[in-house]
Amino acid sequence: MKLYNAWRSSASFRVRIALNLKGLPFEYVPVHLVKGEQFAEAFSALNPSQLVPVLEHEGHALTQSLAIIEYLEEKYPQPPLLPHDPLERAYVRSVALAIACEIHPLNNLRVLRYLVKTLGASEDAKNAWYRHWVEQGLAQLEARLVAERRTGRYAFGDAVTIADVCIVPQIFNAQRFDCRLDHVPTIMRIFDACMKLPAFVDAQPARQPDAE
Amino acid sequence: MKLYNAWRSSASFRVRIALNLKGLPFEYVPVHLVKGEQFAEAFSALNPSQLVPVLEHEGHALTQSLAIIEYLEEKYPQPPLLPHDPLERAYVRSVALAIACEIHPLNNLRVLRYLVKTLGASEDAKNAWYRHWVEQGLAQLEARLVAERRTGRYAFGDAVTIADVCIVPQIFNAQRFDCRLDHVPTIMRIFDACMKLPAFVDAQPARQPDAE
Repeated sequence: MKLYNAWRSSASFRVRIALNLKGLPFEYVPVHLVKGEQFAEAFSALNPSQLVPVLEHEGHALTQSLAIIEYLEEKYPQPPLLPHDPLERAYVRSVALAIACEIHPLNNLRVLRYLVKTLGASEDAKNAWYRHWVEQGLAQLEARLVAERRTGRYAFGDAVTIADVCIVPQIFNAQRFDCRLDHVPTIMRIFDACMKLPAFVDAQPARQPDAE
Repeated sequence: MKLYNAWRSSASFRVRIALNLKGLPFEYVPVHLVKGEQFAEAFSALNPSQLVPVLEHEGHALTQSLAIIEYLEEKYPQPPLLPHDPLERAYVRSVALAIACEIHPLNNLRVLRYLVKTLGASEDAKNAWYRHWVEQGLAQLEARLVAERRTGRYAFGDAVTIADVCIVPQIFNAQRFDCRLDHVPTIMRIFDACMKLPAFVDAQPARQPDAE
């Protein structure tokens, strides 16, 4: 398996965690997003959407972090990253999607660039935007986790799931942009529990070969 | 089953299509987003994230449209909305997620409100923002579909999948905001094919009881 990815990309970080949790070795192929390597011809041929991560496996180029992780779950079911029961699976997926669809998309590089270059937002306005969506999105997630009997050591009881795989990279992003996190103690407790596990620790941005 | 949803919400629209495709009857419970009914106490208790849709089933409140649809697929496998092979499933999910994570989140109501109220964007700038992400996101998806041998009558061969379930509501949104669509002929051909099916036609915003 080859993972085309970038050290700071949180979608890449999710897939690295999942690969580590499953114990699957992979070749790390860095794509330098700030230099625009995702727009180069070779990468565009691999993924016409020009986004990382891409997992190359059995001659196929798989895209979209959550689709890649569901694929890994189906091909390599042990250890499971989703519970068995359909209602519980729906819950875990909804936590993952709350991050992947509600928080993260508003804060990726191309969106921040548009705010500054096209809308003329100041550095302060850009950072306020970033913090607004992260802090509000995490507050909504915190409310769910607090209300939910299923919350345990991790987001779903005492087993690591794709919910945790999405939470951890989002917290790294939040910390990088100095977001408030004192209003989400449950999420931070889960984050701390995950960061005791080598699969998460080894996948973090600073430990990747292309880290700056 | 009870579906708390809103006629124009494209995440709601996706779930309505899936329920129709599976032939599952449901009670339609409208949530008036412009009036802020999603923030009311009763709805917040159901979904602390204060987002539609919510599917109530067997005493559980399921959230996030794609998690709900995966749940329906697991509980009611016929007719399937995902192919059988893991590589093919990953492909179909990646098309759905390309819309749900890359295009739609940038254009929902709360984001457009922030642009205008907090960043002081003009009506023109707001509409340009909307069109930018839709047109660029659809162009990237078009490039994938054109390059992909799996594209058929629908996004994945000749069977309707969750990819189509996400494409159709996104095109409704694009049309509503006068986005360019002449650069995505493959997507529009798929859209037209889907709109020949009652499951899609009946789920469209204008046909819902809360349509204005």
